[in-house]
Amino acid sequence: MRAMAVDVKSLTKAAAELTDRALEELIPSVETVPSSIHGAMRHSTFAGGKRLRPLLAYQAAVTISGALPAGIERLGAAIEMLHTYSLIHDDLPALDNDDLRRGKPTCHVVFGEAIAILAGDALQTRAFEVLAGLDTPPAATVQIVGLVANAVGTVEGMIGGQVLDIENEHAKPTAELVNAIHRAKTGALIRVSVVAGGVYAGATAQDVARLDLFGRKAGLAFQIADDVLDMTEDSSALGKTAGKDQATEKVTWPAVFGIEQSRRDAARLIEEAFAALAPYGGRADNLKAVARYLVERKN
Amino acid sequence: MRAMAVDVKSLTKAAAELTDRALEELIPSVETVPSSIHGAMRHSTFAGGKRLRPLLAYQAAVTISGALPAGIERLGAAIEMLHTYSLIHDDLPALDNDDLRRGKPTCHVVFGEAIAILAGDALQTRAFEVLAGLDTPPAATVQIVGLVANAVGTVEGMIGGQVLDIENEHAKPTAELVNAIHRAKTGALIRVSVVAGGVYAGATAQDVARLDLFGRKAGLAFQIADDVLDMTEDSSALGKTAGKDQATEKVTWPAVFGIEQSRRDAARLIEEAFAALAPYGGRADNLKAVARYLVERKN
Repeated sequence: MRAMAVDVKSLTKAAAELTDRALEELIPSVETVPSSIHGAMRHSTFAGGKRLRPLLAYQAAVTISGALPAGIERLGAAIEMLHTYSLIHDDLPALDNDDLRRGKPTCHVVFGEAIAILAGDALQTRAFEVLAGLDTPPAATVQIVGLVANAVGTVEGMIGGQVLDIENEHAKPTAELVNAIHRAKTGALIRVSVVAGGVYAGATAQDVARLDLFGRKAGLAFQIADDVLDMTEDSSALGKTAGKDQATEKVTWPAVFGIEQSRRDAARLIEEAFAALAPYGGRADNLKAVARYLVERKN
Repeated sequence: MRAMAVDVKSLTKAAAELTDRALEELIPSVETVPSSIHGAMRHSTFAGGKRLRPLLAYQAAVTISGALPAGIERLGAAIEMLHTYSLIHDDLPALDNDDLRRGKPTCHVVFGEAIAILAGDALQTRAFEVLAGLDTPPAATVQIVGLVANAVGTVEGMIGGQVLDIENEHAKPTAELVNAIHRAKTGALIRVSVVAGGVYAGATAQDVARLDLFGRKAGLAFQIADDVLDMTEDSSALGKTAGKDQATEKVTWPAVFGIEQSRRDAARLIEEAFAALAPYGGRADNLKAVARYLVERKN
């Protein structure tokens, strides 16, 4: 059942504006001493990100409670800070050594490596401070902090995925390896965006299990779609250097399964993700429409 | 009133053992995939740190509740992870470029810069995950997470102090500047160790204010004592390169006030810190003895 009536573009735009206003308020101004770190945090935070993780958190909350809960934009902003911190550190010379992201010079190019390292650190810290200040009952706040920290961590989370990626840069790509890297490096934060959005809206343990399954399947589908885009689109459409995964021998889904199989896998995973949302009926239409848009987008 | 009867060496040793056992349990083993990051986290965590911040947290808890509360070693371990993360990032080539710490090769020397950056990131993440799992009532847990994140942050916290230090490395040292750097760079984490230990033990808002004042004064006294040690001791006694602050033009207390005045300031600050603990009588004896030891130590 496709949610044809949902205007994904408007939803996405409204969510991004909501998230941006929260980020503007929550990250200290460049006038706040010490100035350079706040300038660096803002440079990378306001570099044209689409705020897709906050969008997923908001629509997961709507799926649970039927409406957007007040103050959830602070959760969205915290998740976006964590995403931005990971990009700043990933771009460093010691890691991917990227000078450009979304067509703009990366943090260390503008502010130097020392401040870029500390700006990433500080976005992580500020994210947890913002989470601690959420307007949820204390037990829900504690749950969200724990879930988010786990999703960023080394064992099944984002940092673990970055390390797997580094350790295996010149390894033969296998199905098992690409699955492990995607699940951890990009999948975990997407999954926790969905789950934390639900918890913010009062999700029960059963809701959490459903959202977790949805987030796991959809997150992998988004990453497969990203990998395919990187191989098939040119740089100007993407706003970043196309083919970079291949050039740097990153482990990607199409490298293991080919492009056609990858497209079929993404489509199948999205249908499996949708099945987890069946109990919510029409309340999940927005979340499903957003997810479908993310696997079918062209850049 | 000096707490002469307290055996600080035994207290310190017992606290360090307690903290080490918690760290051993809370940081994934090197057998846990991905292995390199856990090896790097452990390398720097178990590099001979004295666990002074956990010790302060434990004795602050004793000051509030009269006994060491069960499970507080997890709070101590989380604070030590944050301290270790800051050392790993401080030692990086882009920051202080230190190859040795406590006589051992630093994280990036052993594991490379990429893994060292991510190991610091991961220790921060794991610290917040451990805090979220503390065995305190949810409202106290939320309070601790917020306080700790604030103490690590950019505005009055550790990262802000690191940035001030970098921004002013070749600046003329002034009283205002050295005060601001010490308060943020090392003072904030010491202060929050004391306050969070108190909150763990059930501190009221009035207790928090007293512990905060104690931690602020004592933390500055410890850093002044450190600065004096750096200028007066030789490297073998310190276990690190003596005179490094001077060589790299770091802003230190003796550089502004001279060594004799610095010693007097440290002694005065400790007495002021003790005054904040007067309402607790003998229950604060251990905390006071530990603080006096920290300003009078020779290495």
